[in-house]
Amino acid sequence: MAEKVYIGDIADHAGKEVAVTGWLYNKRSSGKLWFLQVRDGTGLIQAVVFKGSVSEVLFQRCEEITQESSITVVGTVAEDKRSAGGFELQVTDLQVDQVAQDYPITPKEHGTTFLMDHRHLWLRSSRQHAILRIRHEIVGACRDFFDGRGFTLVDAPVFTPNACEGTSTLFETEYFGSKAYLTQSGQLYMEAGAMAFGKAYCFGPTFRAEKSKTRRHLTEFWMIEPEVAYMDLNGDMELAEDFISYIVKRVLDNRRPELEKLERNTEALAKVVKPFPRLSYDDAAAILKEKEVEFEYGSDFGGADETVISEAFDKPVMVHRYPAAIKAFYMKNDPDDPSKALCVDVLAPEGYGEIIGGGQREDDLSVLEAKIKEHELPAEAFEWYLDLRRYGTVPHAGFGMGIERAVSWICGLSHVRETIPFPRLMHRLTP
Amino acid sequence: MAEKVYIGDIADHAGKEVAVTGWLYNKRSSGKLWFLQVRDGTGLIQAVVFKGSVSEVLFQRCEEITQESSITVVGTVAEDKRSAGGFELQVTDLQVDQVAQDYPITPKEHGTTFLMDHRHLWLRSSRQHAILRIRHEIVGACRDFFDGRGFTLVDAPVFTPNACEGTSTLFETEYFGSKAYLTQSGQLYMEAGAMAFGKAYCFGPTFRAEKSKTRRHLTEFWMIEPEVAYMDLNGDMELAEDFISYIVKRVLDNRRPELEKLERNTEALAKVVKPFPRLSYDDAAAILKEKEVEFEYGSDFGGADETVISEAFDKPVMVHRYPAAIKAFYMKNDPDDPSKALCVDVLAPEGYGEIIGGGQREDDLSVLEAKIKEHELPAEAFEWYLDLRRYGTVPHAGFGMGIERAVSWICGLSHVRETIPFPRLMHRLTP
Repeated sequence: MAEKVYIGDIADHAGKEVAVTGWLYNKRSSGKLWFLQVRDGTGLIQAVVFKGSVSEVLFQRCEEITQESSITVVGTVAEDKRSAGGFELQVTDLQVDQVAQDYPITPKEHGTTFLMDHRHLWLRSSRQHAILRIRHEIVGACRDFFDGRGFTLVDAPVFTPNACEGTSTLFETEYFGSKAYLTQSGQLYMEAGAMAFGKAYCFGPTFRAEKSKTRRHLTEFWMIEPEVAYMDLNGDMELAEDFISYIVKRVLDNRRPELEKLERNTEALAKVVKPFPRLSYDDAAAILKEKEVEFEYGSDFGGADETVISEAFDKPVMVHRYPAAIKAFYMKNDPDDPSKALCVDVLAPEGYGEIIGGGQREDDLSVLEAKIKEHELPAEAFEWYLDLRRYGTVPHAGFGMGIERAVSWICGLSHVRETIPFPRLMHRLTP
Repeated sequence: MAEKVYIGDIADHAGKEVAVTGWLYNKRSSGKLWFLQVRDGTGLIQAVVFKGSVSEVLFQRCEEITQESSITVVGTVAEDKRSAGGFELQVTDLQVDQVAQDYPITPKEHGTTFLMDHRHLWLRSSRQHAILRIRHEIVGACRDFFDGRGFTLVDAPVFTPNACEGTSTLFETEYFGSKAYLTQSGQLYMEAGAMAFGKAYCFGPTFRAEKSKTRRHLTEFWMIEPEVAYMDLNGDMELAEDFISYIVKRVLDNRRPELEKLERNTEALAKVVKPFPRLSYDDAAAILKEKEVEFEYGSDFGGADETVISEAFDKPVMVHRYPAAIKAFYMKNDPDDPSKALCVDVLAPEGYGEIIGGGQREDDLSVLEAKIKEHELPAEAFEWYLDLRRYGTVPHAGFGMGIERAVSWICGLSHVRETIPFPRLMHRLTP
């Protein structure tokens, strides 16, 4: 029997007879020929069935097979400059494994709810392939970046014991008679990781029970969070721009066909090279004023504000030193202006908004204790965290990047829901 | 100022004056000399302070600094064959960033509960470093293995809508007015992934609310689950032995010092090369009978049974074709003996028990529908899953490997709790 090969490796088998197992993606006929578009998950290839070279029964089978029928195609790999992959299969045998009846997703247009209800099948389409292959590339690039720089993977727990900053956006579960909450961020744990390993990161799913139905919110999303001991805000910004430049370059280098499939403007991505513009919160607020955007100085930027700010640049922009009052208790205040926090948000270009949030952490025990009191947080829950300031405290900083927002931006998508295989939204828990 | 370097890169700076930032791990004095063991998370180095070459104030500082004090050490990198890393630092300057008072974990013995309560600090010890670096290596190896073979990462959701197989071991959460359950396995989703991408895998945390207090159970653990279209049980076993051989070799190649630190018998690991012995459930039951272990034929193997079976071999052993009655509904029955399932468990050697469970899935729509009925499962919840059999069903197989059990075995640990940075057990939700 012919050797079984994957379409993704077809170029290695030019001139040979091979077997491809997969599904019918599309077909068309021109009398004596059938052109079958076959997908096997690693690629698409055109299988050409010539009436003169196969049995009548086999030629008839081509008539019968429908979209997404499972088939085994035997044929000779022939160069074909017109086809996307550069090769076609000249069919010598065709086995029908199952004829699929009435596949729900046809080449015609479908509504989003319908497609989301059929997400388990929608994943088979070439557009979803392109997005999820880019997601795969980005996930791999994230890990390679930090692994290559000597970071140690320190997986943060999903179950956390305390609702430290209020329960309103936390998912809660009963935990053997007590309550546990699903993590919103591994940061506090990564600070322990940084004190142990110098450079640490975690990368896993995080959860927010936000009643948001925007195009940028998922209830379950993946986040990568590096944290570094003996690093300040400047170092943090350098790390963030190195990191983002690296992952964008990886996608441009390795996922051109997928970006093309999505009709992504790759010139815009090619501009994402460091250094990124850095501007203070005050500078950013001045841009809003100049553009006559209604904005209350001292408040956080909304999505629309972020769009205006980021559109002033053709690279990601790093906005640092927000008012301390609107930032988390663990942020270190700027010694040069204690009303500001040593934090940074990275806003993606093209109106994609915040993809990274981070900053330098408060490393002084007594200041941190005072802040916990001031924020009316349960002191006892933070005893372990305060230990990090009791035993060899050092300046340290880090950030978190939400993967789905990064994928959305790099793919140029209008909604975050297609950036994850099985999205979870306020009104979406299936399939 | 001297260039700041990491101890892990110290060999690149031989003969140069550098600055190392980190923590005091240990110290000893011999009159005119202080020997400071400094750790920065990437390694340990001995910093030698010679009374004759530094100021009196600086020499006095060495007296004052305590375990886990944060320090910045400036010195010349000198070759030193006696030290573990091959280099020492001849100190020219020393800055004390914070003197740590009464660090709780001292070189003396501590009880497990105490250490687990101080997990955020315990991570700083060299034994925990060794374990978590090996974990990091294994996680990277898992991803590289599947990425290198053309698998696509298809992250499975944590939130699932149905308690398909009973709620007794599921964590439940309120989800905007309805109920969601935390995933126990991404397998069903990976089957959708395999139909879309041919070869798919997921890798993320999974959850079991089991009231187990054994040395092998965590409530939150990471699992990698590959799934392949057009693959049968034999292919699945080949994939599993290739995979395990690969990750063990990676650890042996890259993490020798860590294995030595743990006093791991590496000769036992070196034997983990394919092919692995394959034996049927019946063969395994015969071993138990021969060894006069009390065992009821037809039931599942317990931990003690697995130990007896695995101790008959010096490699992982693949036990296939368990009674269908004790396996999940989605397992395909063996056509040669329908009372058996086309499944496989891989038992690690040295008594470590099951690390992989998997098999070939039922691909026939009507058989699967009958099984769902027979198991009294809610048919509606599986409609999307049945779609995978309606639209181009193909033979397919896969498996799941729990990372912590693999780390436990490869590190040679007696309990799974040290294999993850922040373990979650029935009675352990902190820190």
